[in-house]
Amino acid sequence: MSELHGTGVSPGIGSGPALLLIGDVPEPPADARHDGDAAAEKARAADALETVAADLEARGAKAGGEAKDVLEAQAMMARDPGLADSVGALIDGGMAAPRAVFEAFRGYREMLAAAGGYLAERVADLDDIRDRTIALLSGLPLPGVPTEADEPYVLIARDLAPADTAVLSRDVVAAFVTEAGGPTSHTAILARAMGVPAVVACRGVVDVEPGTRVLVDGASGVVRLAPSESEVAAAREAEAARQALLSAATGPGATADGHPVPLLANVGGPRDLDAALANGAEGVGLYRTEFLFLDRAEPPTAREQEEAYRAVLNAFPGGRVVVRTLDAGADKPLAFLPPPGEEPNPALGERGLRMFRVHPEVMDAQLAALAAAAADSPAKLQVMAPMVADAEEARWFVQACRAAGLPEAGVMIEIPAAALRAADLAAEVDFFSIGTNDLAQYTFAADRQVGALAPFQDPWQPALLDLIHLAASAAAERDTPCGVCGEAASDPVLACVLVGLGVTSLSMGAPALPAVRAALARHTREQCVKAADAARAAGTAAQARSAAREHLPGLAELGL
Amino acid sequence: MSELHGTGVSPGIGSGPALLLIGDVPEPPADARHDGDAAAEKARAADALETVAADLEARGAKAGGEAKDVLEAQAMMARDPGLADSVGALIDGGMAAPRAVFEAFRGYREMLAAAGGYLAERVADLDDIRDRTIALLSGLPLPGVPTEADEPYVLIARDLAPADTAVLSRDVVAAFVTEAGGPTSHTAILARAMGVPAVVACRGVVDVEPGTRVLVDGASGVVRLAPSESEVAAAREAEAARQALLSAATGPGATADGHPVPLLANVGGPRDLDAALANGAEGVGLYRTEFLFLDRAEPPTAREQEEAYRAVLNAFPGGRVVVRTLDAGADKPLAFLPPPGEEPNPALGERGLRMFRVHPEVMDAQLAALAAAAADSPAKLQVMAPMVADAEEARWFVQACRAAGLPEAGVMIEIPAAALRAADLAAEVDFFSIGTNDLAQYTFAADRQVGALAPFQDPWQPALLDLIHLAASAAAERDTPCGVCGEAASDPVLACVLVGLGVTSLSMGAPALPAVRAALARHTREQCVKAADAARAAGTAAQARSAAREHLPGLAELGL
Repeated sequence: MSELHGTGVSPGIGSGPALLLIGDVPEPPADARHDGDAAAEKARAADALETVAADLEARGAKAGGEAKDVLEAQAMMARDPGLADSVGALIDGGMAAPRAVFEAFRGYREMLAAAGGYLAERVADLDDIRDRTIALLSGLPLPGVPTEADEPYVLIARDLAPADTAVLSRDVVAAFVTEAGGPTSHTAILARAMGVPAVVACRGVVDVEPGTRVLVDGASGVVRLAPSESEVAAAREAEAARQALLSAATGPGATADGHPVPLLANVGGPRDLDAALANGAEGVGLYRTEFLFLDRAEPPTAREQEEAYRAVLNAFPGGRVVVRTLDAGADKPLAFLPPPGEEPNPALGERGLRMFRVHPEVMDAQLAALAAAAADSPAKLQVMAPMVADAEEARWFVQACRAAGLPEAGVMIEIPAAALRAADLAAEVDFFSIGTNDLAQYTFAADRQVGALAPFQDPWQPALLDLIHLAASAAAERDTPCGVCGEAASDPVLACVLVGLGVTSLSMGAPALPAVRAALARHTREQCVKAADAARAAGTAAQARSAAREHLPGLAELGL
Repeated sequence: MSELHGTGVSPGIGSGPALLLIGDVPEPPADARHDGDAAAEKARAADALETVAADLEARGAKAGGEAKDVLEAQAMMARDPGLADSVGALIDGGMAAPRAVFEAFRGYREMLAAAGGYLAERVADLDDIRDRTIALLSGLPLPGVPTEADEPYVLIARDLAPADTAVLSRDVVAAFVTEAGGPTSHTAILARAMGVPAVVACRGVVDVEPGTRVLVDGASGVVRLAPSESEVAAAREAEAARQALLSAATGPGATADGHPVPLLANVGGPRDLDAALANGAEGVGLYRTEFLFLDRAEPPTAREQEEAYRAVLNAFPGGRVVVRTLDAGADKPLAFLPPPGEEPNPALGERGLRMFRVHPEVMDAQLAALAAAAADSPAKLQVMAPMVADAEEARWFVQACRAAGLPEAGVMIEIPAAALRAADLAAEVDFFSIGTNDLAQYTFAADRQVGALAPFQDPWQPALLDLIHLAASAAAERDTPCGVCGEAASDPVLACVLVGLGVTSLSMGAPALPAVRAALARHTREQCVKAADAARAAGTAAQARSAAREHLPGLAELGL
């Protein structure tokens, strides 16, 4: 039995047969001819292209959001009339349909590849359409992730795009393992949100033989190949024992000496509410509202929005719900607004609140719907804006919230400038919520989506801790609450450090709540402060982590 | 006479006839048929496509660098055999060549447009090829910027890409005026490097009638339409008087009380050296080496590199030359290395030193050539790396420099994390050089290339001043020199503030040197410190600027 090692990014034990998402459709033979009936062969090719287009569209509709846009654009490519003409001409010349499709795509493909840069990157989209069409024509299995399975599989890939995983659920995937990616890659975030164990940056995993049984430990990052049944059973037992220990801590979040730290859930849509409640969330610390806007030709109606907000408020009577206003930009454009201008770096573009400044009518409609939902709500509603850089923007947003009748308005702290000038911003708002993922991305100028830069996404980086400390201290000066809603909050060790840095609440993917609750319950606030000081005094992320642990003796008892 | 107002980004007075870079080639009529000789018409179309391809290639070869890659990719598109086939088939059907070209491009165009995102942005490249070909076939003037002119023109555009301006010189362009762009857009940087007056963010300028005489004040941002001859003469006289006053300050940079502040030039290649010497630069504070690497299929030889480095060292006997190692990435890939992976945000990708970590052989060759050039040099060579995020990276680079026999090694401070942890980095390096443009870009998460976000690129933003202060203070603790080589140094008011923040040298586009020298000479270091404190205490960039000016009374005498 052999073992591979990666970075565990979503805890838990998963096992099942390996399914590799690296499907290559073989090139059809160059001399393949059809049987002489060109008209029938052309009809066969046209049918296959249409089937592929319709399938892509259906997958898009099922997935929604960003994935829908990507898949619909691919469907349009498959239906391009110029492409059909080229295929037809080749079949008229006697070529068999699979080879004709292969050749017809070659022209477009070479043009894109020759253009280099972004165009060349789109070659993969073309190849995907081509391979699906050829597979259909040749009776081969379609590339892609199966959305049904008799036994949940361990999905192995170089990396996973949102489009690959959008249609998956816990019922079919036992674990994710990728060769690329980092702790805050989309694979990691999605896996935590789904509660599926995941290991990233696992070198060599794409060489695993398909079908091999695999045992994945999403905490330690160990991936065992062909484990014995008793090993699987032992791993599951150990995990169950750990879960039992974690579940022993219940009730509102607090340190061992009773300093309250509300523990909240990050929620991306109605389907995440059950897990939040099951894991004892005291409310919602980050309600992402993109799902209401991104997958539609028309903006949501006032009633639709109100109902969506009311549903989450009703789920937490007596609790709080922090709603983040729409975070769209050039990388996630809204179909019902004019397309944004060219942006060579969408992450540095007119995203979030910046988009609202161009289209304030979208903001005003959202704030009005939120105010209507809050009017008769059993929970406390707080509204915050993403991508706020300075006090002037914060003031503009808070004024709009006040005008809409919303009593509590805050801002995300996810741009370095906002953390640096947190004292200026605190004078304008009712609360802060630190988004550690984007804050790390900008502080280190390191794209969250680039696996090779994953070390800079490590939330233990001392520079990031410095900025969190700056923001939390400036907030404390004015008694302004300052939460963290980034992935950093879901690490039980770092959660203690965040409390030590002055953070007043923590919001995370619901499956992480029990371990964070247990870790906080075993340490005093003073221990947290000492751990935070030690972490900031360190020179690297790894040193910060081990320096902090020395002040947090209760972690070992919990197996953390 | 009417007036338009924008942001002056490159001082000076320019006047000439307006040339608008917004050329549209009209759509050829849908019913245009050729005279029946399809073979001759096809030959005519093929000739036109080849002429366009060859012209694009020649313009690329002349421009070099990044522009060359862009133009060569376009030339390949024009030579695509699938395209020629489509044009031929349409002409065979009787269509006239211009319309056949128009129709043949439509298929590719729609496919790109349908795909959205980056692909859709490439539609403009296709349209440019199509319009050039149709213009040639129809006897219309070719779109593009004239590279020769009897009288220098004022170039007006929505925005300018490097490819538009790569082949221009001061002899043909009297001034640039753009509707988009900000103080650190490429238009602004290029204009300052060329010493050509420029105004950006000038609303309404694209509606100016072509040929109208225009008077541009690149300091105040005022653009006068149809000025009288006496107005032009008066503006030129005032400018000459201002220049005379500025030129009165000579010698090494220093404050009024004799605190030395070496004034250095930013140099992008050998052609910038004359201007540096003419403006009294004490050396080079930023020697960009990309020009040696970006426009070629093979890496430069050791001898070529040595000669290039020796040329700049020989120009400043007794002075210093700070060479920045290669800053390439996914947005400026190197033809002789495997293409970098997909990067949705190249500015946040594997740029600069990060690329060296993947290809250390490129770094080692550059460092060896630098060491060879320094061996018998009359100037002091300092070498620094771009895109350094933490102390570990700084240490790795400095060790490589030491191993190559280079005595002075430093890092750019252009990533927020590097400024935040400057104390850690200062322990590893011989000097810092703060790159304010990229530092602002990351600190505000605001792309330098997006005109609408230009306010965040304002180097007077208090958050940026905070980071500069952090870095300069940490450097001072260890007596580590800390220069600024971003565009901020070229603003004479801000230059005084930078000195007040603790910056020890200033490097800028050479044309800015006299004004900065004069401004420093009129103020004591203490006045600079007070101006810096006042700026940091302000809440906005505009408030910071006016607060600082109150402590710098000598500026008004200089007309600054």
